[in-house]
Amino acid sequence: MKKIGIISGMGTKAGLEFLNKFISRISADNDQDFPEFIFHNNSSIPDRTKSILNIGPSPIDELRRSLSLISDYRVDYIVSTCITSYHFLNQIEDSYSGNLINPFELIIEQLKNNFPKVQKIGLLATTGTLKSKMFERVFEDLPFEIITLDGYYQEEKFMKSVYMNGGFKSSHTTAEAHELFSDAVDKLIDLGADLIIGACTETQFGMANKKINIPYIDVVDLLVGEVIDLIYNTVENER
Amino acid sequence: MKKIGIISGMGTKAGLEFLNKFISRISADNDQDFPEFIFHNNSSIPDRTKSILNIGPSPIDELRRSLSLISDYRVDYIVSTCITSYHFLNQIEDSYSGNLINPFELIIEQLKNNFPKVQKIGLLATTGTLKSKMFERVFEDLPFEIITLDGYYQEEKFMKSVYMNGGFKSSHTTAEAHELFSDAVDKLIDLGADLIIGACTETQFGMANKKINIPYIDVVDLLVGEVIDLIYNTVENER
Repeated sequence: MKKIGIISGMGTKAGLEFLNKFISRISADNDQDFPEFIFHNNSSIPDRTKSILNIGPSPIDELRRSLSLISDYRVDYIVSTCITSYHFLNQIEDSYSGNLINPFELIIEQLKNNFPKVQKIGLLATTGTLKSKMFERVFEDLPFEIITLDGYYQEEKFMKSVYMNGGFKSSHTTAEAHELFSDAVDKLIDLGADLIIGACTETQFGMANKKINIPYIDVVDLLVGEVIDLIYNTVENER
Repeated sequence: MKKIGIISGMGTKAGLEFLNKFISRISADNDQDFPEFIFHNNSSIPDRTKSILNIGPSPIDELRRSLSLISDYRVDYIVSTCITSYHFLNQIEDSYSGNLINPFELIIEQLKNNFPKVQKIGLLATTGTLKSKMFERVFEDLPFEIITLDGYYQEEKFMKSVYMNGGFKSSHTTAEAHELFSDAVDKLIDLGADLIIGACTETQFGMANKKINIPYIDVVDLLVGEVIDLIYNTVENER
């Protein structure tokens, strides 16, 4: 069976939720039927957005440490449970063996296969991910319009719901975080989004309490689905 | 902050439940406030009980592989989420650095501190753990009488609830597993137990659905509590 390496700790709760969703989708009867994986909860990785905004240290050294641990162990696939971290992971491709699962490809595949008629996509992503232009580059040649939040809603609603004390990164999430998150989602819908992408691993916590009438794509669900497919070879066989 | 190495996969669900309980007890606001840990879900480790009963291969090579991965990374503490595995871990103390957390010491500490008046202890443990005599040795000089299930209840009730297809090691647990487990617990109480120890990491799943009128000590809860204490240094400072 394929071995998986998982870089977590960005944050811990989001990474653990990835793991819970991953294991809940496995069908197995004995210990030996479950997959082998290494999960590094590297909470020492500095904040990715702060680094991209040049107001904090680079996460690269710590990401290299996780990659070294995981790839020394000859895993087949590596997944990082922080989308913003991919900005840095793409810069240090020399520092690991094993295939890094690409969440952007999964999002595009999902859109093309299941939502070809969607035109305006509301994007919930960290300020670091937005500034990194990762999405812009990926969507450059595609027929979708990307809608993002303006500064106030991005910082004071979405980012605050994730980063505030009592936000989605905290051990105990407050009702205020859910309200701020809800306002951010409503704003994207007001701006005309006909589909929303949760492109930050913490958005899964906000969306768990938020009802919307347009489709929602969660990047954690896509990563989990891809890992399952890769372990059981179905995707590989198709390709 | 102290680093923790966790050996899991024996089984996967029990190890993940350890992790969920561990993280649920952390109080933190930022990514960097959470602890660093390495979690190796080594599902290739052969069954520990079968090895002790001489009907299956030794798990030692695979345990060494996990220990090597984890201790190369200079963790401060190592915990295995399978109590039966300690029979083998005790034999290969040369193969790791870092302190192996000892669940037997935690059980004795708990009994001495909180249940000094208890006389008869009902023990839910794998047949491997029972045959290994680990508990007998630990309790040799202590004023507690250990009650275990006889062959039929041990194999056809308790072990079956853990190992059967649809048992507590399976991805999807059946009502039958809970019924078998319940019968095993009732039997220990019939035999006069005035406290029950769940000394197999899967017992946490059975006890989640079982109400009893005598105290219950779960080894997973003890391990989680110890890891939390060690990370935040409270236990070390007291000693």
